[in-house]
Amino acid sequence: MVERLETAGVHAKVMPGELTTAIGAIGDPEGVRALALEGMPGVDQVIPISRPYKLASSELSHHEPTKFNVDGHTVGGGRTFCLIAGPCTVESREQTLAVADVVSRGGASMMRGGAFKPRTSPFSFQGLGTAALEILKEARERSGLPVVSELTDTVNAEAMAEAVDVLQVGARNMQNYGLLEVVGKLGRPVLLKRGLSSTVDELLMAADYVLKEGNERVILCERGIRTFETATRFTLDLGAVPYLKLHTHLPVIVDPSHAAGDRRLVEPLSRAAAAVGADGIIVEVAEDPEAALCDGPQQLYARDFERFAHGVAAHAALAGKQLA
Amino acid sequence: MVERLETAGVHAKVMPGELTTAIGAIGDPEGVRALALEGMPGVDQVIPISRPYKLASSELSHHEPTKFNVDGHTVGGGRTFCLIAGPCTVESREQTLAVADVVSRGGASMMRGGAFKPRTSPFSFQGLGTAALEILKEARERSGLPVVSELTDTVNAEAMAEAVDVLQVGARNMQNYGLLEVVGKLGRPVLLKRGLSSTVDELLMAADYVLKEGNERVILCERGIRTFETATRFTLDLGAVPYLKLHTHLPVIVDPSHAAGDRRLVEPLSRAAAAVGADGIIVEVAEDPEAALCDGPQQLYARDFERFAHGVAAHAALAGKQLA
Amino acid sequence: MVERLETAGVHAKVMPGELTTAIGAIGDPEGVRALALEGMPGVDQVIPISRPYKLASSELSHHEPTKFNVDGHTVGGGRTFCLIAGPCTVESREQTLAVADVVSRGGASMMRGGAFKPRTSPFSFQGLGTAALEILKEARERSGLPVVSELTDTVNAEAMAEAVDVLQVGARNMQNYGLLEVVGKLGRPVLLKRGLSSTVDELLMAADYVLKEGNERVILCERGIRTFETATRFTLDLGAVPYLKLHTHLPVIVDPSHAAGDRRLVEPLSRAAAAVGADGIIVEVAEDPEAALCDGPQQLYARDFERFAHGVAAHAALAGKQLA
Amino acid sequence: MVERLETAGVHAKVMPGELTTAIGAIGDPEGVRALALEGMPGVDQVIPISRPYKLASSELSHHEPTKFNVDGHTVGGGRTFCLIAGPCTVESREQTLAVADVVSRGGASMMRGGAFKPRTSPFSFQGLGTAALEILKEARERSGLPVVSELTDTVNAEAMAEAVDVLQVGARNMQNYGLLEVVGKLGRPVLLKRGLSSTVDELLMAADYVLKEGNERVILCERGIRTFETATRFTLDLGAVPYLKLHTHLPVIVDPSHAAGDRRLVEPLSRAAAAVGADGIIVEVAEDPEAALCDGPQQLYARDFERFAHGVAAHAALAGKQLA
Repeated sequence: MVERLETAGVHAKVMPGELTTAIGAIGDPEGVRALALEGMPGVDQVIPISRPYKLASSELSHHEPTKFNVDGHTVGGGRTFCLIAGPCTVESREQTLAVADVVSRGGASMMRGGAFKPRTSPFSFQGLGTAALEILKEARERSGLPVVSELTDTVNAEAMAEAVDVLQVGARNMQNYGLLEVVGKLGRPVLLKRGLSSTVDELLMAADYVLKEGNERVILCERGIRTFETATRFTLDLGAVPYLKLHTHLPVIVDPSHAAGDRRLVEPLSRAAAAVGADGIIVEVAEDPEAALCDGPQQLYARDFERFAHGVAAHAALAGKQLA
Repeated sequence: MVERLETAGVHAKVMPGELTTAIGAIGDPEGVRALALEGMPGVDQVIPISRPYKLASSELSHHEPTKFNVDGHTVGGGRTFCLIAGPCTVESREQTLAVADVVSRGGASMMRGGAFKPRTSPFSFQGLGTAALEILKEARERSGLPVVSELTDTVNAEAMAEAVDVLQVGARNMQNYGLLEVVGKLGRPVLLKRGLSSTVDELLMAADYVLKEGNERVILCERGIRTFETATRFTLDLGAVPYLKLHTHLPVIVDPSHAAGDRRLVEPLSRAAAAVGADGIIVEVAEDPEAALCDGPQQLYARDFERFAHGVAAHAALAGKQLA
Repeated sequence: MVERLETAGVHAKVMPGELTTAIGAIGDPEGVRALALEGMPGVDQVIPISRPYKLASSELSHHEPTKFNVDGHTVGGGRTFCLIAGPCTVESREQTLAVADVVSRGGASMMRGGAFKPRTSPFSFQGLGTAALEILKEARERSGLPVVSELTDTVNAEAMAEAVDVLQVGARNMQNYGLLEVVGKLGRPVLLKRGLSSTVDELLMAADYVLKEGNERVILCERGIRTFETATRFTLDLGAVPYLKLHTHLPVIVDPSHAAGDRRLVEPLSRAAAAVGADGIIVEVAEDPEAALCDGPQQLYARDFERFAHGVAAHAALAGKQLA
Repeated sequence: MVERLETAGVHAKVMPGELTTAIGAIGDPEGVRALALEGMPGVDQVIPISRPYKLASSELSHHEPTKFNVDGHTVGGGRTFCLIAGPCTVESREQTLAVADVVSRGGASMMRGGAFKPRTSPFSFQGLGTAALEILKEARERSGLPVVSELTDTVNAEAMAEAVDVLQVGARNMQNYGLLEVVGKLGRPVLLKRGLSSTVDELLMAADYVLKEGNERVILCERGIRTFETATRFTLDLGAVPYLKLHTHLPVIVDPSHAAGDRRLVEPLSRAAAAVGADGIIVEVAEDPEAALCDGPQQLYARDFERFAHGVAAHAALAGKQLA
């Protein structure tokens, strides 16, 4: 075994125990994995020790948390809280501009709005597509807020990059590697959502796909994971936020709307996200959620937004952060 | 099918659809379940509509959240935040009294300390047992703080009820129905931890076991659930707190120590628990965690406790609650 | 509430209970969902009764299970067992042709081999790409076996459709809707793998994306789901096979290699897949797994393949199926 | 760090890497855990290498799989398949004796029947209790089959040990350590069910609790784990069977009834359990499941039992096992 490891350029250190012998392998983890030692006669298990992500790791060159500017709003760095709000989906010009006004007045840092919607069933509403991009441009101009929207297909990459300020990669696409490389090359800030059954280590490896293209402006987003519990739509993993803060230099925000699936839970979870040390949140707001074509039950009432933003900002302030 | 339902005293309402026919069954859910209709020819699925817990439900007679007094400290009711702190396990008189002094000075509402420890491996340290109870009594007298400790076996029920103020039922025993009935009969306040793979509905049904014995002083505790994510020991389900607030009248607290398994995450998660609207938290504190016989890595340093308590209390204050 | 439902063209039937009132809504489920009733004052929960998939459902027009022919090998229909085997990844002409010979002699129905590999880390080997397609064509010609290979990006759709007989959509892309529509339009048979955290209902909805383009030749594949258990790489959900058999007309196969991640478990799980009623399996085979660039530990030894195939076929025969 | 390890009697081997330094710690794992190194300044993570169970491990003295005799029926050892069948719950003398006749004629190795039933809701039927034990004794005498029944509370330990041949510890009690020690001391064969969210390693640690009392007659039982999938009641983890076979000398059986929750899935899963290499299965059978007071939908029809047993036995035969 030691010979095999040495020929792969890995240094092996033998540690005999009472029942089993451990062998420490020092060198390139990919090289060790390629040896496929697990399952060989005499090998019980291969346990990776080094962390599998590289560029996203805080162990590397980065001594400071990553911080960048999106049209005058600072993301990351530990002193600002980025409040992103807007409708789930752009459904019409009137609806979008009305919400833009509300969130802008309420102190939001950026505006969100879906143009292309990935839907579990092919028979559900899929978004307005490119028509929505024009509406988002107008909303940006009017409100002065940078716009976040989801890119679901590389086909729309250029059009999206031209129309929006932050490209969102959704939970379902966190491991769509072709898409990750495209957004890495476009150079726009990227909001990367955690897959609904992805570990935080996998989230960081997905960030590596964007970072290795030279694009360092990546925002990680915890949005709830799939567990056995069905009381809430997903289980918001707020413990992932301080964990990520220990292990990566990238900013981390939270999406409580999709996790909860119920607006009555969105405000408490938004406050908790601020308290746990997140760099921001992204929430859905609508004037008339009952009329929304998508995800109505989880959207905050526009009339409540100012009070909501005020409450969240108070918790962020206790964590040392001002609204971006 | 309708006949079958009617003979069981259930009223059936037929709703024919395009492909399948739905039948609404109105009456006792247990009665319908007993009919075992699922799997009968022509029956595709049986979907329960009414919630399976009864006494713990906020739908019933309770118009106000349950509130009670433990030796001068109010639990529940929405105006107080119950900070429970202490060592994981009572290891010696000196260690326990020293931590009692620290948490008492820091503003804790109650003190925790394990006498009997359930351990996954039979070769791990199992606690001091009854000897620990004497030490806890002394700590209570000296600090003036009520004491919380876990009951793991009905054999020790009397001794525990005499020595401690709040009986904890641990996550592994949440569905140990014999134990639940015993603590229901003892009449002492009960801290009931959610099982690590129990739904919140099952937690409420477990509470029903205690409540039906006439003991209304039950505190529910979210302590992390088991998911695919291994970055943290368990996934703290903070969304369960506002969900429970909507559906039960019982007070709800959070245990961030066991969920995190890493003290660096305990403070952010404690602040988040206060922000999300919990009625309190229970945390582990030690003077020298590196020397602890159990769960050292998750225990807060005693020297940090006062600052910690101050930070958590600030978030609780934003949620309208003062330290109990 | 009833009014609201009626205006949406949904017929409402009111069923008053002791504590809550149930309302049966009969009509288009999308229409009800669009109303966003959950979270409205007075509404506790909205519970969907009808199944969310349509074209994949066995409730619809299909009275017989779907059956189709891939180059002389029958898939589906309940009398044949489809044994798909080959290397994880095409690494070279020699390696691929050698394995093709082995699996062809051993009685395989089709051959598998990866050209484009989706990898969690951007620093892992990603496959030979289009060069692999030429090698697969040669292997097909020589062995006479149809070839299955994964399409990871719509960019390669045409080249893949020309080179391979069955297009695989991998677990990570099960909800990549753009990709699903493209394979739907290409008209080639599709092997659709269940996402690692997708429910079987979601798998059937993903199949709907392909079916609605008019492509009825879809093979579903259970390949293990992500759970808390880490002893095996994924948890192979064999119960999903008979469940799917009850609810869809599409053929269902099993991939035990990726679920197990350890070749010692692949043979027992393959036999179990045949016994549980699957229409086939897909397994990885290598001459020298220790030298494989990807997933070596889970690949069967080529020298064991004939014995392996014989054992699996015996269990399939008990379930009434002959090798396709 | 090295000093700290050495003072705990652990030998430390330092392996410096590019970014981090690994330290191999050779010695007692409990000793290392007690040091609570995780979370100390400079320590990123502590990764246990040795397996946490001891007596249940196949690494230890045992060179042969454990095999024992229950009233003439061999359990374990690899040549026999133990078919345990009977009603979910003893509801009456007539019902129990009728099912005993059916399963005895059908070739069952043992009979099951619940006397004390743990129920999630306190308002569900809890079993006949000690009255059921008398009925089980009569059924044993008449059918000649050994009887398996669940012990839920140490209070009933003596009465149960006197009345039944194999004491079952249910999934909810897998970590009820007081109960495990009691069944260890009673010396009766024990059927230990895996907790619904317990890892297989935890199952083996639970077995250690029984084994350390000197009772070596332990049968492990996979019965489905809790996952995000709700199509089946639990997810039957058949991969756990060959995994356990690699790591423990104890016999392993499967309970497909509770996992499936639907009788239409029980037969295919029973066949799969035999094919995957299990040492037996335990299934529920009823003459009139629709009238059963508990778990009706998952019970096999008595009239189908003989055909069912024949089919399962055929798969077991392919795995080299005859009905015990």
